Amino acid sequence: MAEKDLAGLTASQMAEQIASGAASSEDVTAACLDRIDGIESQVHAFACYDREAALQQARDADAWRRSGKPTGPLHGVPVAVKDIIDTADYPTECGTAAMSGRRPREDATVVAKLRAAGAVIVGKTVTTEMAYFTPGKTRNPRDLERTPGGSSSGTAAAVAAGMVPLAIGSQTNGSIIRPASFCGVYAMKPSHGLVSRAGVLPLSRSLDHLGPFARSVDDLALALDAIAGYDPNDPDTRPLSSCNFLKTAQEDFGLKPRLAFVKTPVWDKADADTREAFEELAEHLGDACFTYDLPAHYAEAWPAQRAVMAAEMAHNLGRIADKGGDKVSKRFHDLMAEGRKVTATQYLDAVAAARVMRGAIEDLFQQEATAIITPSAPGIAPKGHGSTGDPMFNTLWSLLGLPAITMPLLSGEGGLPIGVQLVGAPGDDARLLRTANAVVRMLTD
Amino acid sequence: MAEKDLAGLTASQMAEQIASGAASSEDVTAACLDRIDGIESQVHAFACYDREAALQQARDADAWRRSGKPTGPLHGVPVAVKDIIDTADYPTECGTAAMSGRRPREDATVVAKLRAAGAVIVGKTVTTEMAYFTPGKTRNPRDLERTPGGSSSGTAAAVAAGMVPLAIGSQTNGSIIRPASFCGVYAMKPSHGLVSRAGVLPLSRSLDHLGPFARSVDDLALALDAIAGYDPNDPDTRPLSSCNFLKTAQEDFGLKPRLAFVKTPVWDKADADTREAFEELAEHLGDACFTYDLPAHYAEAWPAQRAVMAAEMAHNLGRIADKGGDKVSKRFHDLMAEGRKVTATQYLDAVAAARVMRGAIEDLFQQEATAIITPSAPGIAPKGHGSTGDPMFNTLWSLLGLPAITMPLLSGEGGLPIGVQLVGAPGDDARLLRTANAVVRMLTD
Repeated sequence: MAEKDLAGLTASQMAEQIASGAASSEDVTAACLDRIDGIESQVHAFACYDREAALQQARDADAWRRSGKPTGPLHGVPVAVKDIIDTADYPTECGTAAMSGRRPREDATVVAKLRAAGAVIVGKTVTTEMAYFTPGKTRNPRDLERTPGGSSSGTAAAVAAGMVPLAIGSQTNGSIIRPASFCGVYAMKPSHGLVSRAGVLPLSRSLDHLGPFARSVDDLALALDAIAGYDPNDPDTRPLSSCNFLKTAQEDFGLKPRLAFVKTPVWDKADADTREAFEELAEHLGDACFTYDLPAHYAEAWPAQRAVMAAEMAHNLGRIADKGGDKVSKRFHDLMAEGRKVTATQYLDAVAAARVMRGAIEDLFQQEATAIITPSAPGIAPKGHGSTGDPMFNTLWSLLGLPAITMPLLSGEGGLPIGVQLVGAPGDDARLLRTANAVVRMLTD
Repeated sequence: MAEKDLAGLTASQMAEQIASGAASSEDVTAACLDRIDGIESQVHAFACYDREAALQQARDADAWRRSGKPTGPLHGVPVAVKDIIDTADYPTECGTAAMSGRRPREDATVVAKLRAAGAVIVGKTVTTEMAYFTPGKTRNPRDLERTPGGSSSGTAAAVAAGMVPLAIGSQTNGSIIRPASFCGVYAMKPSHGLVSRAGVLPLSRSLDHLGPFARSVDDLALALDAIAGYDPNDPDTRPLSSCNFLKTAQEDFGLKPRLAFVKTPVWDKADADTREAFEELAEHLGDACFTYDLPAHYAEAWPAQRAVMAAEMAHNLGRIADKGGDKVSKRFHDLMAEGRKVTATQYLDAVAAARVMRGAIEDLFQQEATAIITPSAPGIAPKGHGSTGDPMFNTLWSLLGLPAITMPLLSGEGGLPIGVQLVGAPGDDARLLRTANAVVRMLTD
């Protein structure tokens, strides 16, 4: 197989080829690096990568396999991680000159878990400034004149451009689902607390999530199998028995899912193409889909998320911003000032409101719906690089900590992708992956 | 055995007598009720109790036992609970006219667990106004001219006066350990999250703890066996395997505990008698005890606890206080105003500081100490009924969520009790109970 073709494989396919000996990790890693070298000057997906270090990891993986030792589910597969995630072998600069040259001594838990599963860490993908709104250098590989979205800009672009089959991003508001939608890839924001955030720049303990970007639902499941689980260093992870996400994702009972088409209070802010595409989608899904209106009080979710995010980010990053001075954007300094004005009772009221909303929506999943279906973003990626687009279609699900998946199943103007977002019951990530595969089958068969 | 003597038994002894048939639950309950009737007009420990309802529960317990059905560890034992804990069969007025006549429909989880263990709920013990500082009507049974302490005033007094062998109180700052010290009984504030607070007036999720008052360490363990455990309705409880507290408490390895005598930054505010008594105690314990100085930053615990408590109480009780108007004390209204001024970043900084302090103190327990030994209160119960005394010797341990036990092993002026407080590693409540029994043996043999 030509190296170019190797880079186009999914992570599952790569893992199979490497496991069977049809290709070496060095082959697939070199193919990915060639792809990066070829288009990085246009896409700018990476904050840093190191060809020789990546190839050395790949050769080590090949030697390990040849020795007959047991291998993990991602053995030899090239993976990239967002540059707010600590790595012992690459700088981690969090998209800000205020952390220029920062070199962590240890891998974040998620990186350690990727390595334990056999992954080759090829580099660090561009983040917006401290994973907030100020864009980095990344372009959208579907249309270089458009934003890739953010804050996981480089993560989405790297997977969309075929540079790596799998990459890890983060979401506090809409930073996984939105860029994946704009770049036309699959991605998942797992349930809050499923993936440890130890060793990752903390924005907001209540809202921060890590999750995978890939080119298929199965690859998202494969990644979760590697990175999910209890970590004593992340107090929001839980000691629960592990579940085989990939196996569950691939189950096909032949049962139609029951999808609740939820327009949310921001529906009117989706563009006309997107609204029309979703109305058609709902019709096409027939009796697998029913319209569900959230109670009016869910409109509180947007200001509640804002209060929690601003306050927790001011708590976590205020001193870094103060010290960074004019290395930090006005927009970021403004957020710190906003967060410092939030009162403790406003904050606690917002956290309590989120808990009430989550409790109520659990009833929907228990009684009527397999998953919620709703847009991943207001439309296709906006033109220009001054903004990363609007996370409003992600805010509610981040606040509630529900698992969400975006799938590049619709398109708008110029054939640019519009993501279909599925949202599941809290903690039921495996079932959501299975439902996502069922929806892909229904819409592409 | 005379009824008077029955009321003087410990809960363990009562449970044994009832289990063996040496006494009926009706006998012991009647003995306790006679004791209550005899001295309640002086002690005022109860917000309400119902002789006939209690005797009916006791007769039901006796009938259950005679039928040969399996019985719980507290079968037939009279227990009282603080009047901020919901009961389906008694009013729950939380010590405030603002909730006068309030009748919950359901038992709090802790009450349901007591009933499942076979306990007879004899009544509701007096709390200060919404478990804050404004005293109720209760007098200290050791000296009626003195405060019983608070906020679990009636809980401590009822056990000290021999009205019940076991009662449940709560602590957000010093509301279990301090009144137990003033009244000369044993009590325990378990680790944060060990005992569910569902169905209890919420003051502060981060700081609220429920715990037992009794006349021996074994009775505290017996109570924990009944009331500890996971509850999906209290998000801070954890699904952990249960442990047999009583069995562990009674283990005697013959090993001397290593007690860290911690004076804390408020040591100078203990009175001279107490300081002297503790210096002598440390000397008496010899090589089982060593002096340990907390790092200077632990002084932050007192303002941190204040910020968290004020903010969370304003969040939880602000609306009740507003609606209560002049039914609510100026002191309570002032706290609400103070809590509403706390900013979210001050609140989050305080929570984070507590986490750092807890992490550091875990090292002490892992490396050097079986438990911390320190005063339960600044001295004997103060004279008068306008104040419930100062919780300063409890604040740190409430903020850190560590398990604490007070034991009436010292005495001051007029023979009035001074409590010895033992503090254990977080989550290691069973070991702390075992250490407490070892200390009792060392100091009373």
